[in-house]
Amino acid sequence: MRSRLVVSCPDRPGIVAAVAGFVFEQGANIVSSAQFSGERFFLRMEFGHDAPVDGFDAVAERFAMAYTITNVDVPKRMAILVSREEHCLLDLLWRVCGGELFAEVPLVVSNHPGARADVEAFAVPFVHVPNGRGTRPQAERAMLDALHGEGVDVILLARYMQILSGDFLERAAVPVINIHHSFLPAFSGAGPYERAHKRGVKVIGATAHYVTEELDAGPIIEQDTQRVTHADDVEALRRIGRDIERTVLARAVRWHLEDRVVVDGARTVVF
Amino acid sequence: MRSRLVVSCPDRPGIVAAVAGFVFEQGANIVSSAQFSGERFFLRMEFGHDAPVDGFDAVAERFAMAYTITNVDVPKRMAILVSREEHCLLDLLWRVCGGELFAEVPLVVSNHPGARADVEAFAVPFVHVPNGRGTRPQAERAMLDALHGEGVDVILLARYMQILSGDFLERAAVPVINIHHSFLPAFSGAGPYERAHKRGVKVIGATAHYVTEELDAGPIIEQDTQRVTHADDVEALRRIGRDIERTVLARAVRWHLEDRVVVDGARTVVF
Amino acid sequence: MRSRLVVSCPDRPGIVAAVAGFVFEQGANIVSSAQFSGERFFLRMEFGHDAPVDGFDAVAERFAMAYTITNVDVPKRMAILVSREEHCLLDLLWRVCGGELFAEVPLVVSNHPGARADVEAFAVPFVHVPNGRGTRPQAERAMLDALHGEGVDVILLARYMQILSGDFLERAAVPVINIHHSFLPAFSGAGPYERAHKRGVKVIGATAHYVTEELDAGPIIEQDTQRVTHADDVEALRRIGRDIERTVLARAVRWHLEDRVVVDGARTVVF
Amino acid sequence: MRSRLVVSCPDRPGIVAAVAGFVFEQGANIVSSAQFSGERFFLRMEFGHDAPVDGFDAVAERFAMAYTITNVDVPKRMAILVSREEHCLLDLLWRVCGGELFAEVPLVVSNHPGARADVEAFAVPFVHVPNGRGTRPQAERAMLDALHGEGVDVILLARYMQILSGDFLERAAVPVINIHHSFLPAFSGAGPYERAHKRGVKVIGATAHYVTEELDAGPIIEQDTQRVTHADDVEALRRIGRDIERTVLARAVRWHLEDRVVVDGARTVVF
Repeated sequence: MRSRLVVSCPDRPGIVAAVAGFVFEQGANIVSSAQFSGERFFLRMEFGHDAPVDGFDAVAERFAMAYTITNVDVPKRMAILVSREEHCLLDLLWRVCGGELFAEVPLVVSNHPGARADVEAFAVPFVHVPNGRGTRPQAERAMLDALHGEGVDVILLARYMQILSGDFLERAAVPVINIHHSFLPAFSGAGPYERAHKRGVKVIGATAHYVTEELDAGPIIEQDTQRVTHADDVEALRRIGRDIERTVLARAVRWHLEDRVVVDGARTVVF
Repeated sequence: MRSRLVVSCPDRPGIVAAVAGFVFEQGANIVSSAQFSGERFFLRMEFGHDAPVDGFDAVAERFAMAYTITNVDVPKRMAILVSREEHCLLDLLWRVCGGELFAEVPLVVSNHPGARADVEAFAVPFVHVPNGRGTRPQAERAMLDALHGEGVDVILLARYMQILSGDFLERAAVPVINIHHSFLPAFSGAGPYERAHKRGVKVIGATAHYVTEELDAGPIIEQDTQRVTHADDVEALRRIGRDIERTVLARAVRWHLEDRVVVDGARTVVF
Repeated sequence: MRSRLVVSCPDRPGIVAAVAGFVFEQGANIVSSAQFSGERFFLRMEFGHDAPVDGFDAVAERFAMAYTITNVDVPKRMAILVSREEHCLLDLLWRVCGGELFAEVPLVVSNHPGARADVEAFAVPFVHVPNGRGTRPQAERAMLDALHGEGVDVILLARYMQILSGDFLERAAVPVINIHHSFLPAFSGAGPYERAHKRGVKVIGATAHYVTEELDAGPIIEQDTQRVTHADDVEALRRIGRDIERTVLARAVRWHLEDRVVVDGARTVVF
Repeated sequence: MRSRLVVSCPDRPGIVAAVAGFVFEQGANIVSSAQFSGERFFLRMEFGHDAPVDGFDAVAERFAMAYTITNVDVPKRMAILVSREEHCLLDLLWRVCGGELFAEVPLVVSNHPGARADVEAFAVPFVHVPNGRGTRPQAERAMLDALHGEGVDVILLARYMQILSGDFLERAAVPVINIHHSFLPAFSGAGPYERAHKRGVKVIGATAHYVTEELDAGPIIEQDTQRVTHADDVEALRRIGRDIERTVLARAVRWHLEDRVVVDGARTVVF
């Protein structure tokens, strides 16, 4: 049996000794361990063990730790929200299907009907929930209904082009990851490729981040960039960008699924 | 003898035929040629010839062309402005010295006295012109005086941390290239590494651009980026950034010196 | 109507003037033009025209040119050969399907039966031709039979793990593009990820190249690389590598389809 | 006071608990810690403490550890060997001088006299030791004499174009880091840029590695690459390559100075 322990607490001497000591006393073997001191102290440890781990609460209390222990062999369940552009969605489904992402996809929700056939070909349920100005409250309610009871651990916005309200985020009560098609904080909001072209940048990029109520301002998980030239028009930026978007999102999702990403204030630690 | 012709004009049929025909009739041999149609039509042609080229005005008039013909064997003269951080300055001097940048440096101006010895070691004149809030007009006048009569073709801001007025730019009357220590348009203005760290970006960058009156908003010549992690503090970003800054600036300067960069509205064409 | 002219000939004065003059006289408008002097002179020109272009043979003869004129609006037909790993194949089909690659795929041939359903879901015919030691001559004959009459312009080896004989290449009589899962010339041949891991490289890559009789030695069209660390085992290299392989192959195929790639001895010019 | 502990030993349960426990009992505070299980188990820990650390031998013995404890505040002493090309040498001196590399340079040895003035401008002693076919044994003896008594911790080959014998490496008895101007294992040996150009690669690179008796085959510390095109001739590859070489070498040296690099058989772990 293999588990992952992720800890955050105020930094002070003795934490690693206490945690490693606990793990050793449980007869478990540390497979990997990484730590970082930012605003708080963060620790991620993976260990193998035969018997269930028991009694960590005492250690946690001593150091005022917040912690999670996760069974490595249980796949996380991720819901995917998408609009018209399917490249990120299909890329994710493909990676799940090929075993590259260890996860289950209980449903895909879209505000456009077009992706149904492609999604159902992966034997994944598809729900069409129209969304737009004026209908957002109903749409968010419908989405929460659809998500209800699915045991979702994380929601992915795979080019979902609608803004989610703080109320939705609160009720969903799981992390939400968005892929934005620019290197944030540049070109946050609508039309990043058009604006990148107009500004004449020589590099474009994509950003995967946790969603907060403020648009495109949540903690960044992963970013990457690619060179472009004056000869690349907006359509070329979109094409080049699609490849960046899907690899950046896939990396961020993978790291999230492996409990490698910890939010540290407005930033993330990626172990 | 080798020359470079750079042309811009409204796009219409027959331009290349006319220019290539002219060059051929002059007994010249085209060594390289590149073109682009943006807001206008742009052409850069390098050709070898024995006799001086004569009579291009007729072609230019026919197509309403703006053009320059440059002798490839005449080095451009570049003045360098710098503040406290010397890495970009020294990198440029080093590249000029080693023959990597084909240029002459008639003078270096700084608002700090510290770089004098390093600059004079390259046998380049150094002028200290204090600059700051309230003294900018005098400083700019002093700099224009220092530049006067030096036959400067281009001014490089190699981490010159003062804003230049529109009046200065107009009187200098040559292109001014700045290196900004972020991937614009993100983190324009002061303190980009501090702000990049605070925002938690996973990629930092640098941007070389022509200076216009609006801060950090001129046409971009070159940009590049580098991955960073949560473990890189502001000091680490500065260190990693220095390497990006100097290579990005060096590339932009090289391309400018080779007449490869043409301004196309708010953007640049880089041949 | 839009056409592409690709020319190669011995370098001498007057070529561009002659070609541009011809195009202009035909009433055509040059949309883009690029040239390069390597072992020979190469020119790629795209132009718009109303009437069919006629009479270029006279120009070609004068300069001893080899040339092709291609109608931009006619998709090329590409056959895809694949073995067990489907990521490059599916990526290509996906891009064709989404309009990102302007091409038709008349058939996919595999030496394994597994990809049939995935291929047929794209409404593309699938042919299973077993291949291996001892059966290669029969396999190659069967593949040539399958290709016969399909009007194939190019063959893509999308992780086809069998060596093709010189005889096959000659009879196929169209360019064959392979994706190799290393940055050539490092790790040519079998097991590149295993060997990369053993050697402890900090960067892995992929290479798309034209196939010649000598294994992994043909002219390189495109390469790219990605950083890896000591913590990435062979399985991780394979996973990271898959993303490099498919983007490198997609770029190479795109450039080939747009007549941007010209073979110049052992090298390629990519316009 | 701040120290670094680097440990390697056979992997088994309880190591981290024992080390962290020891550090805690010493009243020290762990600042950073990283570990990896390759052929052996490796651990790098940085900790702050008031009193000298004492008694780790007992822990080491229990787990059959090889270990070093280094005072973070004591600069390492690095000798630099160089031939004609000075860009890596000057870059290193510059970084040492600017405080970016925490090290002392007791001497620079070259088989060419040309770099003397540039080196002495940094107040670093320069020794000219001619080397070439037939004189290698004498040259190596002279270099060992020059190194003797300088307390050198590491030797850097900053484009030193002579092969060092196994005998020299053994007598020098400190790690030797070389920068090779290709992405190894491609183009090991002489003339990598010429061969890269001939092969028509679309990416060039550089590799920093520990030197072993077998040429260009030692454990790789760092590599990086840069895109090139058909238009880049050998001279352009050299120019582009110089920038890669100096950044790759600088990173490798920095990591070595910070005790981040551990040799794991034919590979390195870089913490």
